[in-house]
Amino acid sequence: MSTSEAAAAGEVARVAALGGGLIGRSWTALFLAAGRSVAVYDPDPATETRVREAVEAAWPVLTTLGLATTPAPEGELVVCADPRDAVEGAQFVQESVPERVGLKHELYAAIEPVLAPDAVVASSASGLTLSELQPGWRDPGRMVLGHPFNPPHLIPLVEVMGNHRTDPGVVAAARSFYESVGKVTIEVRREVPGHVANRLQAALWREAIHLVNQGVATVEDVDAAVSSGPGLRWAVMGPTTLFHLGADDGGLAAFCQRYADSFHRWWDDLGTPHLDQATTARLVAGVTAATAGRGVDELTSERDAVLTSVVAATHGSARTAGIAHVRDR
Amino acid sequence: MSTSEAAAAGEVARVAALGGGLIGRSWTALFLAAGRSVAVYDPDPATETRVREAVEAAWPVLTTLGLATTPAPEGELVVCADPRDAVEGAQFVQESVPERVGLKHELYAAIEPVLAPDAVVASSASGLTLSELQPGWRDPGRMVLGHPFNPPHLIPLVEVMGNHRTDPGVVAAARSFYESVGKVTIEVRREVPGHVANRLQAALWREAIHLVNQGVATVEDVDAAVSSGPGLRWAVMGPTTLFHLGADDGGLAAFCQRYADSFHRWWDDLGTPHLDQATTARLVAGVTAATAGRGVDELTSERDAVLTSVVAATHGSARTAGIAHVRDR
Repeated sequence: MSTSEAAAAGEVARVAALGGGLIGRSWTALFLAAGRSVAVYDPDPATETRVREAVEAAWPVLTTLGLATTPAPEGELVVCADPRDAVEGAQFVQESVPERVGLKHELYAAIEPVLAPDAVVASSASGLTLSELQPGWRDPGRMVLGHPFNPPHLIPLVEVMGNHRTDPGVVAAARSFYESVGKVTIEVRREVPGHVANRLQAALWREAIHLVNQGVATVEDVDAAVSSGPGLRWAVMGPTTLFHLGADDGGLAAFCQRYADSFHRWWDDLGTPHLDQATTARLVAGVTAATAGRGVDELTSERDAVLTSVVAATHGSARTAGIAHVRDR
Repeated sequence: MSTSEAAAAGEVARVAALGGGLIGRSWTALFLAAGRSVAVYDPDPATETRVREAVEAAWPVLTTLGLATTPAPEGELVVCADPRDAVEGAQFVQESVPERVGLKHELYAAIEPVLAPDAVVASSASGLTLSELQPGWRDPGRMVLGHPFNPPHLIPLVEVMGNHRTDPGVVAAARSFYESVGKVTIEVRREVPGHVANRLQAALWREAIHLVNQGVATVEDVDAAVSSGPGLRWAVMGPTTLFHLGADDGGLAAFCQRYADSFHRWWDDLGTPHLDQATTARLVAGVTAATAGRGVDELTSERDAVLTSVVAATHGSARTAGIAHVRDR
């Protein structure tokens, strides 16, 4: 590990979380769990209460997953109305303000002069791309994309990306820091809309919508096909590794040979629907039937409870083993 | 529940499993676990040994999942070299012989004259469609598609399909039987290549391959993006229900309004690769790097161990609650 990687991993004692929305609050809980001090910036005066409530709400899950090993440390959290106060002394900055390019550029311009010399800045942006964000900087060398998957304190994935304008070692430093707080990182090596995971989700959902539109199955049944079928395997391994195990000892080469015709037949038949008014109405009616009167809050609690068990089953020990709890030392 | 549904569910005491391959053996273990007698047909004399070994190997998992509640009942399993012997007295027949239409037609013609009057026959076919299978019957009214997801004793999903030639009540009877042995069923209402789950898998994998082909990410990183990201959520709920929870209280209508532009941007950019030689070679090299010298057997054991925990976390109690163990009564 290079000096800068070390600096950005175990040595990061103070993190700034810019933006106190849903994503920023979840990041904050995770960073606190891993023993970092966190300074949150948000101009909304209601933020402090919301952040403290979110940390409290997340703590039992973080404890279950082995990510938090102490009671929630209230004193390690400060909330600032000025982003320059939040980044002061921070070695890592996670920016999660709303996805408006002008707003992000303004924020970068405000903090750039006061950042610590070695501070790494990562943006949670999902819709905007790295090259759209970089013009907000005089020197974008310290900035990467660090795109989490919602909610960040529960889903391990972070997609990290730099490009030719990123300083050497900064992508590695960001990955190293994220892994030190229990995340699983991947590197996005070329800029495309949606990075990686959102494109994969979009591909799956497009065909799910097509099957509903064509009357092949109801929303409820398509959803059950995922969560009682391949979705269970995707929690364990990704699609290519799974297919590598799908042709006995022959591995992926045998699988491709055996099933290429089937895949080509299916691929040729996949749909390309759009989210027009009729389709949206059909999906809303379908999901209303599928959820049978249960509200969004109830379903969200149910999702997170089961999701916690799934993450514990798939990532529990590995994540715990890899985490550097600063306060444990 | 109608009389015929009742007949096909709790009252099914004897099942015939036609075909003793990987799928047939897994079905056999599941049916035995649920307290049914099983007669397996396979012309290969090695089948009996293989089936008994497979049942023994599956039993600990079936016990963990609450699907098996007794030691494996060796006396409830017979293996027959003549399919007519296997179906004699069976109320439910699961056909899982190799996917060659001529072979399946011959088998149907052999058993049709000796089936019990109310027996329901389901085919595990994944590549062939119901209408391609029906010409094997004088009267296809009792036959449905009953497509499992591999391995059937571990993954709950069964896709059930009838059509205008299927007798009334037969689809419901098949679903009722499957649910009585712990499966989750969906109904495929219109014939399309790949039914439902395989199309969804194909859609996801196509984009995974595209991202590798374009150098956006390695096979290892694309797979990690799934299994440390959306795959974890798909083990809990299907994509449309998950997005229903993705726009605070506004539900799916608000989600579609907020993100339609993003999805359209991503959908327009998704790839349409083919499994040509160069792509297959790239995927094989990628999966070889990702699995770092671990063999197919080792990875399969690892998959099934974690998968068992995931299925227990997501389906454990619900499945156990719904199962009718014949021998428990």
